[in-house]
Amino acid sequence: MNKKGQLIVISGFSGAGKGTVVKRLVEDYGYSLSVSATTRAPREGEVDGREYYFKSREEFMNLIDYNGFIEWAMYVDNYYGTPRAFVEKELAAGHNVILEIEVQGAMNIKKQYPDSILIFLTTKSAAVLKERLIGRGTESEAVIAKRMKRALEESEDMEQYEYIVVNDDLDTCVHDVNSIIVANGCKAGENIDFMKAMKEELKAI
Amino acid sequence: MNKKGQLIVISGFSGAGKGTVVKRLVEDYGYSLSVSATTRAPREGEVDGREYYFKSREEFMNLIDYNGFIEWAMYVDNYYGTPRAFVEKELAAGHNVILEIEVQGAMNIKKQYPDSILIFLTTKSAAVLKERLIGRGTESEAVIAKRMKRALEESEDMEQYEYIVVNDDLDTCVHDVNSIIVANGCKAGENIDFMKAMKEELKAI
Repeated sequence: MNKKGQLIVISGFSGAGKGTVVKRLVEDYGYSLSVSATTRAPREGEVDGREYYFKSREEFMNLIDYNGFIEWAMYVDNYYGTPRAFVEKELAAGHNVILEIEVQGAMNIKKQYPDSILIFLTTKSAAVLKERLIGRGTESEAVIAKRMKRALEESEDMEQYEYIVVNDDLDTCVHDVNSIIVANGCKAGENIDFMKAMKEELKAI
Repeated sequence: MNKKGQLIVISGFSGAGKGTVVKRLVEDYGYSLSVSATTRAPREGEVDGREYYFKSREEFMNLIDYNGFIEWAMYVDNYYGTPRAFVEKELAAGHNVILEIEVQGAMNIKKQYPDSILIFLTTKSAAVLKERLIGRGTESEAVIAKRMKRALEESEDMEQYEYIVVNDDLDTCVHDVNSIIVANGCKAGENIDFMKAMKEELKAI
């Protein structure tokens, strides 16, 4: 079975641990990670092509014109986009590709790739979410309040996701997300060719 | 989250290894196994309540009258049925329940329990299926031919299942089925109460 890869879209509250979960999925299960392009300046320690592909505004606009992104959006004055070439190439090669992306982008992806798997990561409660944001120690009270307000907005979109995964224990969470990907590969709709071949062979035997 | 348990229906070709897979799911993951009732006579080594609940025809008919089965069928002159009380009790207690059942019964279950998970087990090819039936060494050529004919009929119903799992390597197969169960528990539709509570809490915080 030389099947096409699956496209896995991971969204979730800021503070739910998306980055850590995605990193583990790539390390433990070898999934391909799509790296976004952005016009924002690199932060200390960020490497071009690892955290992001850092682009000038002109380069980014040019990529939009050439249909180079499967989705893009502006967020706090900077552009972010998902490069089309990498995703298409990996899927065609049968690799499962993970995108970490916000809600609006996820909805755009679903329109273009109806078979993509939409997963929303959350803490087990709002109190824990707030604790984690405070625990980072890097954010001011004002920023935390803003993030919590945004979480409330994002919670309105949770239902649009097919899967809700609680990141309480990291190992369990990573295992749950992987289970979703494995299960999706077993869906009848993903195995049409196999079923057809099986039937033909049963007729002929 | 005191969620209801999930009902998992496993069907598949005779020779695909349903019994072994189900046994492993119960042993490795602690799922509850529904034991069927039947009017056929116990075979050597079979224990009442383990392989089947062995019932007289009168007892069985009486149970039908009292709505004691969630599905029942006649097969080669004997009756087989899934006792309702056990399934309902386990689901209410939040336990995941496994039924090993043939295609027609599976369709009946799906009508009554729309959230049940239908999984079809298969070998990776018809040739392997035939090999396994021959390998058992217990069946005559005529019986094997009959089983293969039945497999062809059953293959027409494969598409009615949500999931197709190939039992090539047993560990992988058991892992795949478990992934399907875990993934199903993460479906948004299974987490309506959780999402509602999360939203309320985010509003209040």
